[in-house]
Amino acid sequence: MTDNISADLLITNGTVITMDCKDSVIENGAVAVKGEDIAAIGKEADLSACKASKIIDARGGIIMPGLINTHTHASMTIFRGLADDLPLMTWLNNHIFPAEAGLTPEKVRDGALLACAEMILSGTTCFCDMYLFEDHVAQAAKEAGMRAVVGEVLYDFDSPNYGVLEKGFAYSEMLIEKYRNDPLINIAVEPHSPYLCAPELLERASLLAQKNDLQLVIHVSETKSEVSQIKKKYGLTPVGFLAGLGVLSPNMLACHCVHLTEDDIALLKKHDVKVSHNPESNMKLASGIAPMPELLKKGVCIGIGTDGCASNNNLDIFHEMSMAAKLGKIHARDPAAMNAGSVLRMATIDGARALGLSGITGSLEPGKKADIIILDTKKPHLTPMYNPASHLVYAARGSDVLTSVINGRLVMEERKIFSLNIAEIAEKVIRIAKDIGKNNTAAHKQ
Amino acid sequence: MTDNISADLLITNGTVITMDCKDSVIENGAVAVKGEDIAAIGKEADLSACKASKIIDARGGIIMPGLINTHTHASMTIFRGLADDLPLMTWLNNHIFPAEAGLTPEKVRDGALLACAEMILSGTTCFCDMYLFEDHVAQAAKEAGMRAVVGEVLYDFDSPNYGVLEKGFAYSEMLIEKYRNDPLINIAVEPHSPYLCAPELLERASLLAQKNDLQLVIHVSETKSEVSQIKKKYGLTPVGFLAGLGVLSPNMLACHCVHLTEDDIALLKKHDVKVSHNPESNMKLASGIAPMPELLKKGVCIGIGTDGCASNNNLDIFHEMSMAAKLGKIHARDPAAMNAGSVLRMATIDGARALGLSGITGSLEPGKKADIIILDTKKPHLTPMYNPASHLVYAARGSDVLTSVINGRLVMEERKIFSLNIAEIAEKVIRIAKDIGKNNTAAHKQ
Repeated sequence: MTDNISADLLITNGTVITMDCKDSVIENGAVAVKGEDIAAIGKEADLSACKASKIIDARGGIIMPGLINTHTHASMTIFRGLADDLPLMTWLNNHIFPAEAGLTPEKVRDGALLACAEMILSGTTCFCDMYLFEDHVAQAAKEAGMRAVVGEVLYDFDSPNYGVLEKGFAYSEMLIEKYRNDPLINIAVEPHSPYLCAPELLERASLLAQKNDLQLVIHVSETKSEVSQIKKKYGLTPVGFLAGLGVLSPNMLACHCVHLTEDDIALLKKHDVKVSHNPESNMKLASGIAPMPELLKKGVCIGIGTDGCASNNNLDIFHEMSMAAKLGKIHARDPAAMNAGSVLRMATIDGARALGLSGITGSLEPGKKADIIILDTKKPHLTPMYNPASHLVYAARGSDVLTSVINGRLVMEERKIFSLNIAEIAEKVIRIAKDIGKNNTAAHKQ
Repeated sequence: MTDNISADLLITNGTVITMDCKDSVIENGAVAVKGEDIAAIGKEADLSACKASKIIDARGGIIMPGLINTHTHASMTIFRGLADDLPLMTWLNNHIFPAEAGLTPEKVRDGALLACAEMILSGTTCFCDMYLFEDHVAQAAKEAGMRAVVGEVLYDFDSPNYGVLEKGFAYSEMLIEKYRNDPLINIAVEPHSPYLCAPELLERASLLAQKNDLQLVIHVSETKSEVSQIKKKYGLTPVGFLAGLGVLSPNMLACHCVHLTEDDIALLKKHDVKVSHNPESNMKLASGIAPMPELLKKGVCIGIGTDGCASNNNLDIFHEMSMAAKLGKIHARDPAAMNAGSVLRMATIDGARALGLSGITGSLEPGKKADIIILDTKKPHLTPMYNPASHLVYAARGSDVLTSVINGRLVMEERKIFSLNIAEIAEKVIRIAKDIGKNNTAAHKQ
């Protein structure tokens, strides 16, 4: 029995999937929120003495931690479906890069706001972003009420945002200062990849991240051609190359990791590097199948990411979980590989760990920040329910999410988002897309 | 300009994706329905003279043919999530087969009704079913107002429904007579597979199908062990074995086709055998990756299927399309493989062809039966829209479907199903599941 507590929000009448270290599931459970924090979790009967100014009845559904998208380029919603089913280099050179050349802070902001709306509506409460004009992505996340890890992409050539690389580091340092004590925004240092960043850039980025105890987010071994290129240039795999530079660390988030050798996997494990798995993007771009069952077996921490909307084309982590589990099984030729429980951890607590945020989000535990979603399970496709974890990974959709609480704030209830004006955002993005489409030969092609 | 016509239903204000042989897309389009049939399709302005007793405003969304699920075991919704992530033989022998031993006509009916609700809610208007007690599946489909191809599964051992095989053929003939002129139900002859059916059974089933001009539906080359078994027994691949029996024909629907040789593919093409592709089930059971890009290249007609809910665990063809496209690309190592247009055809007109129903469904064309769905595209995850086909395959979800018309009847409007009492069906299935769960060790395990 919990002592009398007063709360700001009490969620009752649900199955609470805590994702704590014991994988505790509480039937007929309740969660009390006070300020930004989870104040108490327990059986509904045990929280009956809790007085709250707002009570939400989960109507027998699932109460769980908000999902975490460990790798995306949120603003790329503006390119969703612009050019699909094309060879990688045609897609990049003829469609994405020319469209990106016209980016402005406003377009980045509007695209990110649309992404936030989509993410909230599909149960994501926290995302890690890599793109240009990231101050504007951070502002969009704050406006939406979402938790985010954002970092300006750094590479050897000039950026449409900051210009020369030196200014990229200055911009990153500005972000670090600006958001140092922000309740929602965490800054990361984000060199693009071993193939677009010289050793000096990578070392300097790593030092900046270390000095400020921030995540170092980077694309690693996404495609075969990238691996060949790095091998040709340095005589090493991308992971081996990064190890040689001394930049592998527990603060590194290596995105994609599709083409890994056994030695690469051992290095990632040795340095406790975190991995972001992006199955849909890897499939859609035909990059390859990431060896996630092998990484899991070695105990490497894996989060799930959607990548950007130009190569997915959605930001639904439920869809991504289903893909991750099924792709892992087919890759391992073992239906027992990547079971529902492990995939659910990737999308919650392990995702938080990958972002350096496991102390504050990723599970429902007293003292953590209140990042909570509620799912409606009274639907034909979620009936019957023998096992909630199975349903969350194999049957649920983003559209089953009714309610979202982020950092203690009720951001969405009954699928109505309070923080954003969706119609207005959509109108702006449609206008942006009209301009992009005019200049693009692939748009409107069946 | 269409002449004055009177219609029962007029759908206006949408982008009409016809899936006709020219892949016609009509912006600002409208569709008129009279009785069971599509009476007219065109620009909204051209149908302005049409008088209809019921008008539905698609609100700028997508109007398209209802989706076709070419392979499922609908009643297996009652086992959804009962036992996942297990080795194939443990799953079958310890969980599915014991649970199926307790099947009754009522359980099959209730499970099928739940499946129909899920399918209608996710845009499917026609499904092909293989299971036991199929008369009750047919009745469920009729009650739901869905189009279905149903057939009683035939195999060498006794069936919990009909007993000895002889009675299985009698049951199949009964179905053929009973539904001969049914507007919604089509009967198929359905021997389970080369590994569970002796040559005599297969030949007799084939003759019965031919005599009545019905589809012959069969599982083919789903797993490696099945292929080894047939090779050991007959010295041939499953497809080669069926060819030797003389049962390959344009009326055959071969489900799964995961493990095929080049000769197998040539045989399927030569005999114009239709194929049902079930990517999610093949992935979840780690059966393998079906060579669909190769089959497509040879011009083999492919439909999409979800398989049963015990190995998927949902019946959402939108989800299946996304998987099919992405799995095909990764398999072919080519992002241009399995493009959105070809996958959309699989889920509509080619699915209809696979079921022998392309004369009546699978596309929106005057004179065909009115099997139509409307999608709400004013949602963040479908914004912006450069290309409707891309969105339908890569971004849409079953939950975006608002309205469903089947055989001219308005079965669902604004996500409210008129034909079924979902709460009552769910209650029955939950009761069935409680009994099943009691006897099952895997249920309720995280």
